[in-house]
Amino acid sequence: MSYRAPVRDLRFCLEEIAALDSVSATRAFPEFSRELTGAILEEAAKLCNDVIAPLNWPSDQQGCTLEDGVVKTPNGFPEAYAKFVEGGWQGLQFGTEHGGMGLPRALGCALMEMLQSASMSFGLGPMLSFGAIEALIAHGSDEQRALYLPKIISGEWSATMNLTEPQAGSDVGALRTKAEPNGDGSWAISGQKIYITWGEHDCAENIVHLVLARTPDSPAGTKGISLFLVPKFLPDENGNPGKRNGVKAIGLEHKMGIHGSPTCTMEFAGATGWLIGAEHKGMAAMFTMMNSARLNVGVQGVGIAERAYQQAFSFAKDRRQGRAPGAEGPAPHAIIDHPDVRRTLSVMKAKIEAARAICLHAAVEADLGEYHPDAEEAVWSRRREELLIPVAKAWSTDVGVEVASLGIQIHGGMGFIEETGAAQHYRDARIAPIYEGTNGIQAIDLAGRKLAMEGGLAFAELIEDVRQTVEDCETSSNPALPPLASRLRPAVDALEEAAGWMASASMEDKLSGATQFLKLTGDVTGGWLLCVGAVAAQRRLKEAEGDPAHAETRIALARVFADTVLAAAPGLISDIQLGAEALFAPGEVMLESA
Amino acid sequence: MSYRAPVRDLRFCLEEIAALDSVSATRAFPEFSRELTGAILEEAAKLCNDVIAPLNWPSDQQGCTLEDGVVKTPNGFPEAYAKFVEGGWQGLQFGTEHGGMGLPRALGCALMEMLQSASMSFGLGPMLSFGAIEALIAHGSDEQRALYLPKIISGEWSATMNLTEPQAGSDVGALRTKAEPNGDGSWAISGQKIYITWGEHDCAENIVHLVLARTPDSPAGTKGISLFLVPKFLPDENGNPGKRNGVKAIGLEHKMGIHGSPTCTMEFAGATGWLIGAEHKGMAAMFTMMNSARLNVGVQGVGIAERAYQQAFSFAKDRRQGRAPGAEGPAPHAIIDHPDVRRTLSVMKAKIEAARAICLHAAVEADLGEYHPDAEEAVWSRRREELLIPVAKAWSTDVGVEVASLGIQIHGGMGFIEETGAAQHYRDARIAPIYEGTNGIQAIDLAGRKLAMEGGLAFAELIEDVRQTVEDCETSSNPALPPLASRLRPAVDALEEAAGWMASASMEDKLSGATQFLKLTGDVTGGWLLCVGAVAAQRRLKEAEGDPAHAETRIALARVFADTVLAAAPGLISDIQLGAEALFAPGEVMLESA
Repeated sequence: MSYRAPVRDLRFCLEEIAALDSVSATRAFPEFSRELTGAILEEAAKLCNDVIAPLNWPSDQQGCTLEDGVVKTPNGFPEAYAKFVEGGWQGLQFGTEHGGMGLPRALGCALMEMLQSASMSFGLGPMLSFGAIEALIAHGSDEQRALYLPKIISGEWSATMNLTEPQAGSDVGALRTKAEPNGDGSWAISGQKIYITWGEHDCAENIVHLVLARTPDSPAGTKGISLFLVPKFLPDENGNPGKRNGVKAIGLEHKMGIHGSPTCTMEFAGATGWLIGAEHKGMAAMFTMMNSARLNVGVQGVGIAERAYQQAFSFAKDRRQGRAPGAEGPAPHAIIDHPDVRRTLSVMKAKIEAARAICLHAAVEADLGEYHPDAEEAVWSRRREELLIPVAKAWSTDVGVEVASLGIQIHGGMGFIEETGAAQHYRDARIAPIYEGTNGIQAIDLAGRKLAMEGGLAFAELIEDVRQTVEDCETSSNPALPPLASRLRPAVDALEEAAGWMASASMEDKLSGATQFLKLTGDVTGGWLLCVGAVAAQRRLKEAEGDPAHAETRIALARVFADTVLAAAPGLISDIQLGAEALFAPGEVMLESA
Repeated sequence: MSYRAPVRDLRFCLEEIAALDSVSATRAFPEFSRELTGAILEEAAKLCNDVIAPLNWPSDQQGCTLEDGVVKTPNGFPEAYAKFVEGGWQGLQFGTEHGGMGLPRALGCALMEMLQSASMSFGLGPMLSFGAIEALIAHGSDEQRALYLPKIISGEWSATMNLTEPQAGSDVGALRTKAEPNGDGSWAISGQKIYITWGEHDCAENIVHLVLARTPDSPAGTKGISLFLVPKFLPDENGNPGKRNGVKAIGLEHKMGIHGSPTCTMEFAGATGWLIGAEHKGMAAMFTMMNSARLNVGVQGVGIAERAYQQAFSFAKDRRQGRAPGAEGPAPHAIIDHPDVRRTLSVMKAKIEAARAICLHAAVEADLGEYHPDAEEAVWSRRREELLIPVAKAWSTDVGVEVASLGIQIHGGMGFIEETGAAQHYRDARIAPIYEGTNGIQAIDLAGRKLAMEGGLAFAELIEDVRQTVEDCETSSNPALPPLASRLRPAVDALEEAAGWMASASMEDKLSGATQFLKLTGDVTGGWLLCVGAVAAQRRLKEAEGDPAHAETRIALARVFADTVLAAAPGLISDIQLGAEALFAPGEVMLESA
C-alpha cells in the first residue's frame, strides 16, 4: 500500500504538455526555474511518500471522533500536519508578501495531487485552506488580510468553507443562515451548516470559517447572500487565538469514505463574524475561489486514481495465477502478463495521464491568465482556464472512480477485503464527483456558460489547437505518430459537430446532452494533450534529451488512449443529441418499476 | 429505502422478450401457466418486499460475528430464512420428485432477482444452495441424493461451495486441500478454504459443504481435482443432524460490502466426506453448476441495480433543488425534472431492463436446452445459453456497479452518507464482477471457447436473430420503431465484424480485446432484446392487450438505449482490435509511475 509520488511523470506533464516554462514570461515568479521545480517536487514527494501516505489506511480504519465539540483526527494526522506547516507547503503558490513561496499555481496543483494520493482525508484540510486564502486575497479588507493571511498561509491556522444547508445543496441560493449587525462593524451569525470539511479538528490552533449567510431584508436567492469570516477563536490584540467564538461542531457524518476527514455539522449561535467584501456579494466572492476549488477537486480525482493505480500495478506484478500466452518462465505467471490485466492497467494509466494533463494545462493557464503582462495573452489564458475547469473537475473525478473500481477488479477477491486497501480508494474516490458542484452541475456549466462565452470562442480555440496537433502528428518523422492523428482527427470533428449542435439546441435539449458533451470534451482534450506529449517525446528522442525509454512510453500511452477512448469518441454524438423529448415525452411512467 | 419487486416488468421480460411460454412445449413443467407465473411472482414479491428488504440496511450496519466457530448472522436473518423455507422457495425450480415445485429455472431467476434486490447478503445463502442442489442432481449417487436433496431443496439444510485457497483463485487447478481414503468409502478432508460464502451461520440446522480437493497421487492441475460432500453434522441413521464433523469456520472476512453475508475461512481437519461423482472429475462436476451459478450472479447484478435504481428514483421525485426548464409549478422543482437527472435515471432503467432481458433469455434457453423434446431445438437452446452465460454474468454485474454508482450521484452529498443507504448498494455491487469467475475470465470464455463453438455457430445464430429484429422494427407500422432499426443495424454489423476479427486473431490479440468484445456483445444483445420488447409492445398496443401506457414505456426505453448505448457500439471496434503489441511491446516501463 505504499505510494511513490510520480515526480518524473508530473514534470513531463508540467513541462512538455502544460508548458509550465511559459510562466517565466509573466515575471510574477522570479524564483521559478526548472531546477527549482525539480527540487520542490522532490521535497514535497518525501513528505507525501514517507510521512502522509503511511497514515492513509490506518486513518480510514480509525476515523474521527467528536466529543463535547472537540474533534480528534486519526493518529498521526496532527504530527503530519505539523510537518506540512514546517515545510511551508500551504504557502507554495501564494505571494511572498504574505509569507508564501511565490511559485506558480501549477506547481501547487502538482503538490496537491501528491497530497491527495498520499491521503485524500488529510489533503482535504490544506485544500480547504487554499480556497479561503484566495477569497481573502481577492476580497478581504487590508486589516483582514494582515490579520489572517499570514496565519493561514503558514498553515498555523486552517480554514473552511460553509455553504451547504439541508435544503440548500446544489441550490446554494436556498440557504437560510442569518447575519445580524452587532453595531460595531461585526455581525452575529446564526444557523446550521452541514457537510463542513475539516470544520473542527485538532491539527491547527485556530480555524477560520468562511460562511455564507443572509443579512436582514436581503433579496431572495443568490443575490441576497453575503460572505463572512468567523474564526473559532477571536484573535486577541496580538493576533493570537483569544476568546472562543460561538461556533462549534455538533455532529460528524458517518460517511462511506474519507473517514479521516472530519465532515462536520456546524452550529453558529450568534457567532461573531466580519463581512468579506460587500454585502450581498457573497456569491461573487465564492466564484473567485470556485475555479481553483474545482480544479483542486479534479486534481484529487487524479490523485486517488494514481494511488489506486500504483497499488494495482504492484499487485499485478506480484500475484501469480495461471498460464499467460507469450509469458516467459514457468507458470503460474504474474497476472500482469495476462493480456486482459495488462490492458486494464494500460487504460488506467493512460486515463490518469490524460486527466493529469487536463488539470495541469488548466493550472498553467490560470497562472498566465492572472499574471501575463500581455493583456490579450492573459485573456486567452483565462478563457482556456474557464473552459477547462468543469472538464478538469468532472472528467478527472470520473476517472478517479473508474480507476479505483478497476483497481479493485485487478485484485480479484482480495480487492473486496478491506485489509487490502484497494477498497478504501473506491470508497474515497466516490465523493469527488459530488462535492464542489456535482459533475452534472459541471456539465451544465460547460454546455451553458462556457460554450456560450464570446460566441463559442473558447471552444473554437480549443478545436484549433487540437487540429494543430493533428497536423504535428501527421507530419512527424516517427511512424508511431501519424496513426495518432488518424484517431484524433475524427474525434475533434465530432467535438466540433457536437459543440455546434449544442450551441443551437433548446435549453432542454442542451441540458439533456450536457453530461455526455462534457465526456466527449474530456475525451478529446485528454487525448489531444497525450498527443502533445507524444510530439514532445519525439522531439526529446530526436534531440537525445532525457530518458529515451520514458519518451517511448509517452508515445505508447497516447496510442492506448487513442485506440480505446478517442476512437470511440464519435460514437457519443447521438448520445449527446438524444434530446429532452426522448426523456420527458414518455412521462415519469417510463421510469417507474412495477 | 423500501423495495417493491417489479413484477410487471419481470413478467413483460419473461413473457414478451424471453418467450417463457415456450417452456410449455417441453412438457417438463405440467403445472406451468401464465396465471401460475403471476401468482408465484406476487407471492415471492411479498416475502422479498415485506420480510427481507427491510433487513438490508440494518444487516449491513450490524454484520456477522464469529465466536468459537459459531457465526451469528444479522438480526432477523434466521427468522426471514425460516419464512423462505416455509414458502418452499428454495425448491421453486427443482423437480417435484425431490420435493421442489417443478417450475422453470427462468422463474427461479426472477425469484433470485427479487431476493438479491431485497438483500444481496441474504440472497447469497439460497444462491449457494441452488448450485449444490444442481451438482447433487447431476453427479450425486442415489444414496446421496436421497439423503441430502430433500433437506437442501426444502431449505432446512443449506449448502456451500469450497473452491478458493489463497494461492488458487482464478487458477483453481493450483489448490492443495487433500482427501485421503478412510477405507470405509468415506474420505478424510484436510486443508483450508477461503472466501466461503455462508460457510457457517445460524439459519439452517445443517450445512452441506461441497469441497474441491486432491486425492493421493492425483495429477497436477485441474485434472487431479475431485469433488467431496462434507456435512457440518454427519447425518444419523434417520437422516437427521448427528455427530459434529471436523470442519469449522476459523475466520470471517472484513469486507467492503455484503456485510450480512458471512464470508468464512473454513478449516477441514480430517473432516469426513464422500466423493461426488468419479475421482478426478471434480472440475467436470463444477462445470455442471457453473452456468447456473454464473447466471445467478448476473441476476444479482440486475437485482442490486434495481434496488439502487428504485432508491434513486424515489429520491429524485422528492428532493427539490433549483429551477428546471420546462417544469411545472413554482421552483424549487423536484430534481427528476432536471434534464440531467432525468437522463441519468432513464439510462439506468434502460440498462437494467437490458441486463434483465439477457439473463432471462439465457434462463429460458437453459430450460429449453434441458427439456425440449426436439433434440435439434434443445441443442440450439443450449448453444444460445452457453453463449449468453458469460455475457449475462459480466455485462449485468458491470451494470450493477455502474447503476449503484449513478444512484449515489443522484443523491448528491447525501449519497455519500451511510445512513442514506445508497452507499451500501455501491459497496455491495462491487463484489459481483469478481466472484464466480472474474469478468475478465468471462470475457476470455466468450472470446475463446464460446466464439469458437462449432465454428462460430452460436454467434452466427445470435446475429441472425438480431437482424430479424432489425427487419421487424424497420417494417413496423409504429413510426417509433424504424429508428430503433437504424441504431441496431450498425451495432450488429459491428458485432459481426468484431467476431470475425476475433475468430482469426492470435491468442494474444484475442485476449487483449476480450473484455471490450464482451461489452460489445452485451451492448448489442441487450439493445436487441429491448427492441424485441418494443416489437412486442407494439403488438400489444395494436391488439389492445394489457396496459397501453406500459407498452409505450417499453418502446421509449428501447429508444433511450438505442440512442445512447447502441449508437456508440461501432466505436468499440478499434478498442477491441487494439492488439497485444500495443500493450506488450512497450514493456512494463510503460506502466511504471515514477
